[in-house]
Amino acid sequence: MVYFPEGFKFYSGFAGFYSSDRPDVLLIVSEKPATAAGVFTSNRLKAAPVRISQDLLLKNRYFSGVLVNAGFANAATGKKGIEDAEELLRYAAEKFSLPFPILAASTGVIGKRLPVAEIKKALEGASEHRDLELAARSIMTTDTFPKFKSLRGNGGYVIAGISKGAGMIAPSMATTLTFVLTDASLPAGFLKSCLLAAVEKTFNRISVDGEQSTNDCILLLSSNEKEVLKIHKEEFRRLLISLLHDLSIQILKDGEGATKLIKVFAEGFATNADADAAARKIALSPLVRTAIHGSDPNWGRIFSAVGDSGASVREEKLEIYIGKYPVFKGEPVDFPEEELSRYLRSGEVEIRVRANLGRHDSYFYSCDLSEEYIRINSSYTS
Amino acid sequence: MVYFPEGFKFYSGFAGFYSSDRPDVLLIVSEKPATAAGVFTSNRLKAAPVRISQDLLLKNRYFSGVLVNAGFANAATGKKGIEDAEELLRYAAEKFSLPFPILAASTGVIGKRLPVAEIKKALEGASEHRDLELAARSIMTTDTFPKFKSLRGNGGYVIAGISKGAGMIAPSMATTLTFVLTDASLPAGFLKSCLLAAVEKTFNRISVDGEQSTNDCILLLSSNEKEVLKIHKEEFRRLLISLLHDLSIQILKDGEGATKLIKVFAEGFATNADADAAARKIALSPLVRTAIHGSDPNWGRIFSAVGDSGASVREEKLEIYIGKYPVFKGEPVDFPEEELSRYLRSGEVEIRVRANLGRHDSYFYSCDLSEEYIRINSSYTS
Repeated sequence: MVYFPEGFKFYSGFAGFYSSDRPDVLLIVSEKPATAAGVFTSNRLKAAPVRISQDLLLKNRYFSGVLVNAGFANAATGKKGIEDAEELLRYAAEKFSLPFPILAASTGVIGKRLPVAEIKKALEGASEHRDLELAARSIMTTDTFPKFKSLRGNGGYVIAGISKGAGMIAPSMATTLTFVLTDASLPAGFLKSCLLAAVEKTFNRISVDGEQSTNDCILLLSSNEKEVLKIHKEEFRRLLISLLHDLSIQILKDGEGATKLIKVFAEGFATNADADAAARKIALSPLVRTAIHGSDPNWGRIFSAVGDSGASVREEKLEIYIGKYPVFKGEPVDFPEEELSRYLRSGEVEIRVRANLGRHDSYFYSCDLSEEYIRINSSYTS
Repeated sequence: MVYFPEGFKFYSGFAGFYSSDRPDVLLIVSEKPATAAGVFTSNRLKAAPVRISQDLLLKNRYFSGVLVNAGFANAATGKKGIEDAEELLRYAAEKFSLPFPILAASTGVIGKRLPVAEIKKALEGASEHRDLELAARSIMTTDTFPKFKSLRGNGGYVIAGISKGAGMIAPSMATTLTFVLTDASLPAGFLKSCLLAAVEKTFNRISVDGEQSTNDCILLLSSNEKEVLKIHKEEFRRLLISLLHDLSIQILKDGEGATKLIKVFAEGFATNADADAAARKIALSPLVRTAIHGSDPNWGRIFSAVGDSGASVREEKLEIYIGKYPVFKGEPVDFPEEELSRYLRSGEVEIRVRANLGRHDSYFYSCDLSEEYIRINSSYTS
């Protein structure tokens, strides 16, 4: 069941950056003044649309929508990149008679200027719709399927999200773009605090390859169509986490060349930072990820990654589990190789390490590393 | 020309861990009491031989040699791992009548106990030699060629080194083992300070995949056969850097699946830490490494990696060069695509980023990331 938040509409256009029948420009429009919040890449070299959107969010209270294009990141484009993006925002505002500022997002190749004329043409011919899947399709780059999800809360308000992102997620690259729309009437401050908390629990705990892009952004907009009772505000917070969790798993499943989801749980560490570091290091380790790709029960690589994470850990107390199978408990544990190999050939692999040094737990999700990842990434621009 | 330091001899043995005609056990013997220094992995879960060698170096002044085996890392093996290694060291000491402690090093699969009986047998049948290449062959795992180098200093003293290490080098894994032998008479304190300085300039600035092993170690032993004039001590320091530089490049060239050496230079950063972070992030970026593997002039990935390194950097001041070709100077620069592609197809690629924010420079060396890396690492234990 797909729900659609009241007060929003989409325009999808065809600039022909990938092929003539694939949409690559998306305008999200809020019919009434929308409140908004955003989380952006921490990359120090931010793309023009990221800088523009950050600035607009600081200086304005209401927004008319978001203009997104795939194909070109508009990063490393200097002052001209800012000018190009601003010209397009002005054009869209005039053409669609939008009274409030429009936010901007781009994804694609770095270092090429935006083909402004083509995007204008795409906007001219763009058709109005309320199709979440088509909107998700309009922002894809190397994605192999559109990523979207919608949820309905108490009182009938809706939260709906679309994402793109296939490689380079850390939480954040090649690029992750996510747009969440809701008709629940909520002030910008509340949206911001919900978004930060939800991103911390979801997008900040996934990675395809540990790279963080110049363009990553997650925007949350409310059309303020539906009153939300005070009692339901906490529910909104939970639903947003659930929505972003779902989208982040979709992104991982579509990780470049990925064939398996990897979930790493780090438990019983002395500090939160230790648990985070251990989970992250294991999930990102190319050696762990290639071993899981090959369904190889080579738990020594998990052991080594924990030790290399910087987290406090003691060999005699350490436990390692792959799925339900203990493989190390202070010393190597015999395990049913055949059964474990079968488990490793499934689409989702859980790794659990217990430090037994404290009460702090964490988790981090990733995907396996395959030859296909290399193939996709050895020839991107050419 | 291969030089051999006086006062040392090798024994290579066959435990049959890889094949019956490939040596996998090496005993390095110093005929007189040797002084020694070591640098070890910073992985928190250190293998038994690492812990034993660290302890021996702390408590003893002279050593009779080093016992090394390939095939089994003796890591994640608990107390039994320590007992196994100690039993083998006692056995070697008796069999070869060695009066001083023997240091230990292992490399291979994690989590399996050392086949003590097989290694004893290999030592029994081991043959004495002074062949640096054969010694290097005796410690190989996934290496495709033996790594060794020797240099002669003023007054005729020799420094000779052997290394193994193919994947997982950061500076340090899957595993890097390096043994440097010299006949120059030098106290342990001087050896230690030289070794630390040389490792900082060489092995700490290379990586195949950013992983650090449970077993990495670099040992430097002197047989104290030849007096070194005070005036030549600084030369020794330089020669040691040169030797470790050469060995570290050999290791990179034999990186698992590597086809190209990547040298990254970060210049003009505001701090040393910034320059280090930028060079390291670019060199380790899977996206940069796959692009170079595909000879793809996708400099946007270098741009993004600099921004993601945490180093202070400003787009309008940043310059990026691939080889001699500028590709970005505050904005994209046109470059001769054909020529640059030809350069990228060569065996060695230099990347230079200039922040133009200060006077701090750094460098980091890596290799490209290929499908072959995945193939090698998806099936290691099986």
